[in-house]
Formats: sequence, structure tokens, C-alpha cells
Amino acid sequence: MAEKVILLDFFASMFGMRVRVALAAKGVEYEFREEDLPNKSQLLLQSNPIHKKIPVLIHNDKPVCESLIIVEYIDEVWNQKYPLLPSHPYQRAQARFWADYIDKKLYDAARKTWTKSGEELEAGKKEFVEILKQLESELGDKAFFGGESFGFLDVALVTYTAWFHTYEKCGGFSIGEHCPTLSAWVKRCLEIDFVSNSLIDPTKVYEFALKIRKVFGIDTS
Amino acid sequence: MAEKVILLDFFASMFGMRVRVALAAKGVEYEFREEDLPNKSQLLLQSNPIHKKIPVLIHNDKPVCESLIIVEYIDEVWNQKYPLLPSHPYQRAQARFWADYIDKKLYDAARKTWTKSGEELEAGKKEFVEILKQLESELGDKAFFGGESFGFLDVALVTYTAWFHTYEKCGGFSIGEHCPTLSAWVKRCLEIDFVSNSLIDPTKVYEFALKIRKVFGIDTS
Repeated sequence: MAEKVILLDFFASMFGMRVRVALAAKGVEYEFREEDLPNKSQLLLQSNPIHKKIPVLIHNDKPVCESLIIVEYIDEVWNQKYPLLPSHPYQRAQARFWADYIDKKLYDAARKTWTKSGEELEAGKKEFVEILKQLESELGDKAFFGGESFGFLDVALVTYTAWFHTYEKCGGFSIGEHCPTLSAWVKRCLEIDFVSNSLIDPTKVYEFALKIRKVFGIDTS
Repeated sequence: MAEKVILLDFFASMFGMRVRVALAAKGVEYEFREEDLPNKSQLLLQSNPIHKKIPVLIHNDKPVCESLIIVEYIDEVWNQKYPLLPSHPYQRAQARFWADYIDKKLYDAARKTWTKSGEELEAGKKEFVEILKQLESELGDKAFFGGESFGFLDVALVTYTAWFHTYEKCGGFSIGEHCPTLSAWVKRCLEIDFVSNSLIDPTKVYEFALKIRKVFGIDTS
């Protein structure tokens, strides 16, 4: 059967980028459909009636939702090339644990670095750096979270790095200064073609963030 | 190697019960260690330094945290008996999606039915029933969420049913009246020995809930 793969997504989404990275790792061709988030398509609303959120992967007319679940799905369906989850159950559980940690903690903290000011901004930056440091200690002296090769947890985190420029410019701080080990990991990730080709240009993310800040009246002086 | 399996848990936890059900499905012998939650053991704090929460499964000295991740781990390690996740990637993704939905939505709504009063209670009950109805429509006319046999999503949800009596008594409503299809599913689940033997007696959960209500000064008249 010919594969029909459609991705409902939004260019700047770190969740959507996870799916793009995973599809690229596997060499899967797909149709990218950019959603207008204030006016979501009928297809998105029908495909993800529960959360009504991107990304949604529609594979042979069947929708799969929630970015980490989609990445696991991709890893299981296209299992002949570039395995993302480790093969050992304990390492799989660890990768899932830290990816879940990112979802539970990082997004909210990161958001504060570019949408808040004053004390809230300072608290957000502190929290954000603490989370990254925790992840840094999980990385340790490994090349990637997946060990020798880029894997599931790398996918879960690397898409945030397209936003690092925005966090730094809006928050007035340097991630590299606080987290040199993680910054070295970012460089290693970006040397992988399917990763760098799947991540949005950080200046485009920054332009988008500035527009959002303007809409919500956040000080951009 | 002899298996050494320890579960750090708390008797009334629906998250801990998930692990108990999964271990029982696989016939794994383990040591159950009840935690005193206001005075957590050093072992718990060392084994789950990030969230400091039960349940933690310690398998041959290696800790695995977060209940759904533990259940997947158990399913992968003891893979010869009673598979919990479906074998097809799409069905696996669906089971993970709905289990994640339960974690994101059900706990908070359920909690309101026995810790709130007045308008908050009414809103909590409405929300709780809506979530159950959503799950009921996912169940459809299948015997179990896993299809013909009890599976991963059944594990994720069935442990809440040990709390149904508490929700109904404290909230003053009948779950069976609102969700007859789900109630029939509960009965089918309880006919499975490893399920019914792993769930705490609902009257013990209720006694525990009443104590908590007293501590927090919630009206128990």
C-alpha cells in the first residue's frame, strides 16, 4: 500500500518540530499542512476532537495525536531505519521519563522567558535554567541523550533549541553561559542533517515571538 | 539472575494500583513497601529525586518512576505473559493517547468530587462525568478498552474505580446512572482475579478519604 502521510502543524511549534525531526530521521515523505491556529481547519478539529491541537499525524487516513505519542508511533511503524527509542526496557523507561519531564516542566518555564517581565521573568529564567541543568546532568558525558546516537529524548528536547535565541533575546540572558554542556550537545545535534533541516530558523521564531508579544502588549522596548 | 522487585507505594493510590495490577497480570512476585507520605523514606527520595512521588518500581536496584511508564516497562520486561499494550502501532498510539488523557484530565476532576463543596463540587461532578462519558464512547461496544482482553488502557482507568464509591458518597451522585456502559465494563474488569485482587476495598478508600476531609476541614455532615 502506498503510504499517505499528512502532518497538521504550525511552523514554530516545538511539538510539531519533534514530529518533523522523527519523520526526517526515518526518511518518510509527507505532506506538511500549516494550520492557521486562530482558524483551525475542519480536518484538525475532526482529527483531534479532544485537544484540538497540532501536531496531528494522519497516516493512511488515521490520525495520531500528541507529539511524543506520534514520535513513538513513527519509531514503531518505520522501524527499519534509525531507531529512536533504545532497545533495552530500562533505557526506554528512562527516555520516556525525561521526555515526560520536559513536557511537564519545560514549556511553561520557557514561555515565561519571552512573555513575562519583572519578577515573573526573573523567576521564569531561574526555573528554566534549573530544568536545563537537570537535563544536563542526565546527559552527563554522553554525546547524546540516546548515548552514541541521537534518539527519542534528543528529539523531545532539540526542538526547543530553535527557540533558544528568542528566550535569550527576550529574557536578556545567555543559555550557553549557564549550560555549556547542553550547548555543546546542541551543536552536535545541529551537525546532523535531518535535525538541522527540520528545525525552523531561530530568527523566524524570534520574529514570530515579537509579533505575539506585540499582540499581547508585552513590553518590547 | 534472581529478580528483585520492590514497589514503593501507598495503598489508596490509583497510580500505585496500576503498577500492582500490571505486576499481577504478569504474575511477578514483589515486595510491597507502604510509604508514609508525610515522611517519605530515604529510598523513595533517592529513587525518584525529581518528583519525589510514589509509585516507584525498583527492579534489580534500578528505579522506574511514573505509573504509565512503569506499566509499559513491566509489559516490556515480562513480555511472555499477558501482553498489555496492543501489538499494532496504531492501536498502541490510541491506548497511549487515552491513558495520557486520563492523566491530564481525570485526576483533577475526580478530586473535586470529594474535596469540594457547593458550586465547585457541582462543576467538578459535571466535568468528571463528561470525562467518563468521553471514555465510554472510546470503549464503545468492546468488552475492554483493549478489545477482547483487558489491556494497557484498562489498567490506566480501572484503578480509579476503587475510588468510585468515595466519589459517589462524597459527591452525592451515581456514576452508574450517568455511565451505564462504563459500569458494565467495571463489572467485567472485577471478574478478572488479578484485577480484583489488586484493587483496594472501596470502603477502605472511603475511610481514608473521610480522614483527609477531616484534616482539611471539609464539611462531612
